Amino acid sequence: MAKLIEIDDAADPRLDDFRDLTTADRRPDRPGGRGLVIAEGVVVVRRLLHSAYPLRAVLGVPRRLDELRDDLADVDVPAYATSAQTMSDVVGFHLNRGVLAVADRAPAPSFTDVVDGARVLAVLEGVNDHENLGSMFRNAAALGVDGVLLGAGCADPLYRRSVRVSMGHVLRVPFTSVPEWPGALDVLRRHGFHVAALTPRSDAITLRDMRKAGHERVALLLGSEGHGLSRAALDAADSAVRIPMESGVDSLNVATAAAVAFYELTR
Amino acid sequence: MAKLIEIDDAADPRLDDFRDLTTADRRPDRPGGRGLVIAEGVVVVRRLLHSAYPLRAVLGVPRRLDELRDDLADVDVPAYATSAQTMSDVVGFHLNRGVLAVADRAPAPSFTDVVDGARVLAVLEGVNDHENLGSMFRNAAALGVDGVLLGAGCADPLYRRSVRVSMGHVLRVPFTSVPEWPGALDVLRRHGFHVAALTPRSDAITLRDMRKAGHERVALLLGSEGHGLSRAALDAADSAVRIPMESGVDSLNVATAAAVAFYELTR
Repeated sequence: MAKLIEIDDAADPRLDDFRDLTTADRRPDRPGGRGLVIAEGVVVVRRLLHSAYPLRAVLGVPRRLDELRDDLADVDVPAYATSAQTMSDVVGFHLNRGVLAVADRAPAPSFTDVVDGARVLAVLEGVNDHENLGSMFRNAAALGVDGVLLGAGCADPLYRRSVRVSMGHVLRVPFTSVPEWPGALDVLRRHGFHVAALTPRSDAITLRDMRKAGHERVALLLGSEGHGLSRAALDAADSAVRIPMESGVDSLNVATAAAVAFYELTR
Repeated sequence: MAKLIEIDDAADPRLDDFRDLTTADRRPDRPGGRGLVIAEGVVVVRRLLHSAYPLRAVLGVPRRLDELRDDLADVDVPAYATSAQTMSDVVGFHLNRGVLAVADRAPAPSFTDVVDGARVLAVLEGVNDHENLGSMFRNAAALGVDGVLLGAGCADPLYRRSVRVSMGHVLRVPFTSVPEWPGALDVLRRHGFHVAALTPRSDAITLRDMRKAGHERVALLLGSEGHGLSRAALDAADSAVRIPMESGVDSLNVATAAAVAFYELTR
């Protein structure tokens, strides 16, 4: 059972994990970055409470903590109750979701952990936009993708904004960074995966035709919004696949394209 | 050929169409709202230049105007060149896209104009989030939806943020508001459309099964992010369809769900 503690002083050091979030957690790898996992809002906080990440504390207005009462019954951390104003003073901006939870990072699963038993994987290269990255995890969770591998140049899925946009699904969908890029694609192939690179190129085969080939395991390679996949990654794939699109139209947003592809591949 | 005019005074009245955008164009129906169509950035400005909307003027930094040189050759309006600082002073915020175009609204096409010849239509109810609305138009354009009908409670697709998020496709995909809601769904049915309501309900049939039924014309009914479709709209539909999703997962973002459905229906 979480221990409910009322705090009305924004300077209380027990709230330091939640302090100045716009600057402190911006880049965990930078000086001052604390590298904590931060969940915002009832839905995402709930996912963090039920995740494997070691919870440190919860901070919220009484109404939101009350909504989480059943979830807080199972955890043994302080739950700080305060006013919306004190919360704003602590975090450094107005937080209209009214509740935050903070956890330590946990060791990422191994490549083998993510790959074993998976039928469809998403493999990302250069996805350095936190919102696109978060959306991809939400879409992967909704449509039944078994795991996500992060290739070169990807942002940190555990950054606050990614966690929020993913609706907390980065805390549930297994993911890990791959050490060798694009060498990891060969390793996937040896594990029986067909590696398909999603591209807008008109000479690629359609997703549907690729699915009809009946590959048992598929690793879908997705690039960044602006630049797409690198030459090296495209060359290392078994096939180039596309979503049929109207001519003269910009490609879909990368997370939307991923959703369409996940839908086609996971049925 | 657009007439290039250099301006270095932010108070110049010739720039009034572009002034204080965050407040002035927020709601065209509110006092002070000018109801103009505003395009931001090279890609979207280009779409506005080639659209049916009556162009009034272009404002940009020289580099961006230069990128648009060929497009500006075909239009007969002033193109004001200025510095990034003067642009910021005029519009009221820093505009990192560096170019804007403004046009008058044009009369919306009639219901018949949008419906005639269409095979797949999107019919929206309560989509009052400008970004979701813009994304839906982008997805509709990319995936070949023939038109969009706006039912009760939808936001204005021509609002600046929708135009931007749509990548300018609200300026290309035919759309109109329907006068009677949900009565318009009966009219669609009389035009030979199968009206399918997208819902997360588990007792709905899958999109794929609906597609296999081979309806010649489909009107896909889409609700808002938070509340979904109204009871009245669901009751007026011919079928309830769903995207198969993992249990325990929030439904996809409404624009993403729309993209998946458009993909399935337009193939």
